[in-house]
Amino acid sequence: MILRVNLPMDSYDIILERGCLKNAKDLLNLNRKCLIVTDSGVPEKYAQLVASQCFAPTLVTIEQGEKSKNIDNWKLLLETMLRNDFTRTDCVVAVGGGVVGDLTGFVAASFMRGVDFYNIPTTLLSQVDSSVGGKVAVDLCSVKNTVGAFYQPKRVLIDPDVLSTLPSRHVSSGLAESLKMALTSDAELFEIFRSGTALQNVDLVIERSLKIKISVVEQDERESGLRKILNFGHTLGHGIETYDELSGLHHGECVGLGMLPMCSDEIRGDVEAALKALNLPTKIEGDIEEMMNLVAHDKKCDGGNISFITVEKIGSFEIRKLPLEDWKNIVRSRI
Amino acid sequence: MILRVNLPMDSYDIILERGCLKNAKDLLNLNRKCLIVTDSGVPEKYAQLVASQCFAPTLVTIEQGEKSKNIDNWKLLLETMLRNDFTRTDCVVAVGGGVVGDLTGFVAASFMRGVDFYNIPTTLLSQVDSSVGGKVAVDLCSVKNTVGAFYQPKRVLIDPDVLSTLPSRHVSSGLAESLKMALTSDAELFEIFRSGTALQNVDLVIERSLKIKISVVEQDERESGLRKILNFGHTLGHGIETYDELSGLHHGECVGLGMLPMCSDEIRGDVEAALKALNLPTKIEGDIEEMMNLVAHDKKCDGGNISFITVEKIGSFEIRKLPLEDWKNIVRSRI
Repeated sequence: MILRVNLPMDSYDIILERGCLKNAKDLLNLNRKCLIVTDSGVPEKYAQLVASQCFAPTLVTIEQGEKSKNIDNWKLLLETMLRNDFTRTDCVVAVGGGVVGDLTGFVAASFMRGVDFYNIPTTLLSQVDSSVGGKVAVDLCSVKNTVGAFYQPKRVLIDPDVLSTLPSRHVSSGLAESLKMALTSDAELFEIFRSGTALQNVDLVIERSLKIKISVVEQDERESGLRKILNFGHTLGHGIETYDELSGLHHGECVGLGMLPMCSDEIRGDVEAALKALNLPTKIEGDIEEMMNLVAHDKKCDGGNISFITVEKIGSFEIRKLPLEDWKNIVRSRI
Repeated sequence: MILRVNLPMDSYDIILERGCLKNAKDLLNLNRKCLIVTDSGVPEKYAQLVASQCFAPTLVTIEQGEKSKNIDNWKLLLETMLRNDFTRTDCVVAVGGGVVGDLTGFVAASFMRGVDFYNIPTTLLSQVDSSVGGKVAVDLCSVKNTVGAFYQPKRVLIDPDVLSTLPSRHVSSGLAESLKMALTSDAELFEIFRSGTALQNVDLVIERSLKIKISVVEQDERESGLRKILNFGHTLGHGIETYDELSGLHHGECVGLGMLPMCSDEIRGDVEAALKALNLPTKIEGDIEEMMNLVAHDKKCDGGNISFITVEKIGSFEIRKLPLEDWKNIVRSRI
């Protein structure tokens, strides 16, 4: 299946197809120098399968985890390209999850002011979420995504077969992001979660999630309005994630936790049940005040006010902007 | 005078007006956090004049010179913004020449994926050249502009009054870039150079140069075709500049030298005379073979071929792409 992302300047296709990784060379232009970036948590065979189809591959494996999404690794990859005489007509391929995609995408965006970028997301989270939208970035001083660009891939390959090697906790974490999209935009998709059959219908969940995200990004590429709904659960979620760095909650788990206080009393029970059905946590552990203070550093804070999304009724949303303290009070009252 | 740059996504105005620096607060939105970047070669009073009109200025002075256009300084400026709690709705202002503009522009492009960027070029070179076009970048491993973006300023202020403090050698260097544009695109502008009155007509030279550059950039924002004509003289020029780093030729001087072998025998005498009238060098000193080898690292090299511009007749150009060796032979035969 081909899903088209229509944008004013840089439209592109997402190929969603079991087994498509094996046909990468027919789907992408790999007949040139290709920097392939993966991480130590991704089974080696995927990046190697891509490399075997490239004319001149340079394969770099970074260490798994958010800590790798930094300026040092970004610079290292740029230097690797320079040392290997990459030019503006060569390309960069990400094979991995969101960390690899974000870092590699920012490398592609900035090397010689932009070279072709192919994204091959290998986690469910990155397949449904970061593969669409062109948000690429690295962290700075542990503040997430402080440095980056809006830079669209030339093409995205999504092969659900790769999920067979993904630990179930990662699968659940990815489904949290789909659940997020269902809550703001697709009551029918939420029914799949409510019925507890999301895992059995993962191809359909990916497809519907992608369609939601594509529609939102097409309407608001640069996150000036509607696109903010994709941050549902992420405002507090980022705070939880930063606070919790050491105990190691996954991104999707933090987003799931971050959504709960942003849901109305009416639906919160259903959402909590859906999270539990996916084996996702439903209770925030630790100092919530500190987590909320960390949010003040987040980019969604703007001159003392904070933008965030609430869901009163499944499949709909409200974009809200309130003084930080008012948002904190909402969180406090609902956990 | 307002010159409009019309682009598909990010159109903007250039204000060309003597004294406009004093009115910056009426022309720019400075009623927010403003990171102002200048360098040690720019008279302090200009950045301070801008800072005095800002609601919350943070003024950073980097060291003068191309060496400052590096990832370390870029990172330092991003960290400064983070430490001072800049958000996506704050802004960045460059007050200086091309080095300051390129570095600061890339900071603006990448902080939180892009904040408003105001450019206030204070050298003639940056006024006629780098202030239009959105090419921002830093160098990597001494290779110029390896890392950057296409990122348009929100507005550009050009105040010819600031040229009164610019050393005459810098003025000449800037005029070399105007001469470049005259040669490819504006035979009438070349007449001003031929008559030796460019200095007396500097406002007009700036205006005509900007109009040429705007027209080119409007037709080809991302340098996929026509925009290459702006690289006239720059291919060899970059090689000269890299080779010559220590003896300190200015950018415009290198461009002037780089243009000569790209001119037909018919016009080369006139161009040489125009350079001499501006006190610009006309003879390349040093190992030309090594300079040409340095060009092979330049981004205009593409799989063994090199793109470059030649001028057969004043006011016209040819975009050419030849094997590196053929280009070298042209250079060898004409110096």
